[in-house]
Amino acid sequence: MTTAPRKRVLSGMQPSGLMHLGNYLGALENWKALQEDYECFFFVADWHALSTNYADTSRIREFVRELLIDWLAAGIDPKRSTVFIQSHIPEHAVLHLLLSMMVPVSWLERNPTYKEKQDEIKEKDLSTYGFLGYPVLQAADILLYKPDFVPVGKDQLPHLELTRELARRFNDIYKKPVFPEPKEHLTKFPKVLGTDGRKMSKSYGNTINLSDTEPVVRQKLKTMVTDPARVRRTDPGNPDVCPVYEFHKIYSPPAVQAQINTDCRTAAIGCIDCKKLVADEIVARMAPMWEARASLISHPSRIDEIAQEGSQRAAIIAKATLAEVNEAMKI
Amino acid sequence: MTTAPRKRVLSGMQPSGLMHLGNYLGALENWKALQEDYECFFFVADWHALSTNYADTSRIREFVRELLIDWLAAGIDPKRSTVFIQSHIPEHAVLHLLLSMMVPVSWLERNPTYKEKQDEIKEKDLSTYGFLGYPVLQAADILLYKPDFVPVGKDQLPHLELTRELARRFNDIYKKPVFPEPKEHLTKFPKVLGTDGRKMSKSYGNTINLSDTEPVVRQKLKTMVTDPARVRRTDPGNPDVCPVYEFHKIYSPPAVQAQINTDCRTAAIGCIDCKKLVADEIVARMAPMWEARASLISHPSRIDEIAQEGSQRAAIIAKATLAEVNEAMKI
Repeated sequence: MTTAPRKRVLSGMQPSGLMHLGNYLGALENWKALQEDYECFFFVADWHALSTNYADTSRIREFVRELLIDWLAAGIDPKRSTVFIQSHIPEHAVLHLLLSMMVPVSWLERNPTYKEKQDEIKEKDLSTYGFLGYPVLQAADILLYKPDFVPVGKDQLPHLELTRELARRFNDIYKKPVFPEPKEHLTKFPKVLGTDGRKMSKSYGNTINLSDTEPVVRQKLKTMVTDPARVRRTDPGNPDVCPVYEFHKIYSPPAVQAQINTDCRTAAIGCIDCKKLVADEIVARMAPMWEARASLISHPSRIDEIAQEGSQRAAIIAKATLAEVNEAMKI
Repeated sequence: MTTAPRKRVLSGMQPSGLMHLGNYLGALENWKALQEDYECFFFVADWHALSTNYADTSRIREFVRELLIDWLAAGIDPKRSTVFIQSHIPEHAVLHLLLSMMVPVSWLERNPTYKEKQDEIKEKDLSTYGFLGYPVLQAADILLYKPDFVPVGKDQLPHLELTRELARRFNDIYKKPVFPEPKEHLTKFPKVLGTDGRKMSKSYGNTINLSDTEPVVRQKLKTMVTDPARVRRTDPGNPDVCPVYEFHKIYSPPAVQAQINTDCRTAAIGCIDCKKLVADEIVARMAPMWEARASLISHPSRIDEIAQEGSQRAAIIAKATLAEVNEAMKI
């Protein structure tokens, strides 16, 4: 008896900072679920991080390492999933170059996030050739591994569509079905609020990081903003506008949520106690990751080994695909 | 006693067709002279050939091989010079990707040959990301080997200037003098006319190829256009407007040139005899190349070995430079 081979999933993250709860709930938890059902390839997109930040690379190595630690600590299993680093596989750069020859500049200029990001990140230089072409690099990252699915949020669908267009274009021009078109695995990214009530984002400095220690997490929650209309302990609050309550909705059991909802509106519970409750829940969920993290950090060579083993496995597939590409292109 | 190390020169050619006398006199003869005084790196720019011709790659492998044969037959010595193939060295693609992150799109758009070539080659699609970025690939090709000099014609100076700008930009951003700025080795490319009197160019179909056999060369010269005003054998001709006389100026000894100049103007010599004289000179110059070519073709594995050995030597330097780049960028 044989079992059907598992479908393949590929996903990557940029090492552009320390992972926080927003990243965890948005992406990493999804990856953990995916590795149960799929053959997964997870990679650190360190070259991609340069496209928005070539001028300051001082912390890239640290962020690559921290990203790997976070993934492993969160339960990404390097035995089941292939965990690797983009820059360890030169084939990503080679396929990027080959695809660049056949992608019209207009496809890239019409990429909605190209202009959006340029408007959004005004303090950085995003008028570079590399930033214009990052969907080409993304297409190369994906197509090298011929995944069946790529997890994406709705806003990233245009990128994946460009990857599919490039796959079709390549197959058409060279008359060989080298690249299957990857399908989207639509992922809902919950909006996680930061300690200041805005979306949790490292650029706002309002994050709770996976690498924060327990005292830091508790301290951050203690000073977190709440319903701004609730000034005194005796004022009734409104959980609907309270960022702390958003955390309860994610982390607390339904019964606790209901209780808080009532007690806040009647001022039966104060913000300090309410925050303490949610801090306990969050700490309980983070504790196993902290333990795993401590163990990993005490065996630093293990992290290198995992990245190296994963990159070796990934390289075999990348090389095989590139050989097919060269054969189809007759180069 | 030690001798100073030879200065390094790097140059490449695209495998976009069979080499003709124009290419030989313009570039290859210069390379032969350079290898006497410099440590030379000569590479087949097969990835570059895609930038203007990704849609039809059917003859690339043949052209790569023929280019190598032409170089070797013409006297490029693979023991003294490093002869290699761009696509054998993935570091070219990696450095291209890294440099792409820091090159403003505007630098590429203002590249004079970008618009010129688009106007010139209307029948091909040159609106691609890869074509826009070919000066970035060229910069990567050059900078990987840190040459002291790059042979260029006057019209290519803006490209080399872009390479130098990128070298400075990299060194500035990452505060390490990784890339010395290569200097130009200004090369005069003689204008060689084709059999139809226009500039010799494969796109005009008027070439005499290094791989043509003696009968083909003689036949092409026999049907070559001459002074159009000289209709009958008895008409006096004007060497100043005769393309065949241009060949005499390149290939015939001064005494023969002077004689022809007189005899043509007095109709003492006819076009058929005049062409026969120049054909003899050209054949005499091509004969040693034909002999070398025949010997190479009868040992086909020798060509592969030379390309492989050269690529291995080139790879050592390319890898060392890329390691420095990664170290400077801290990736």
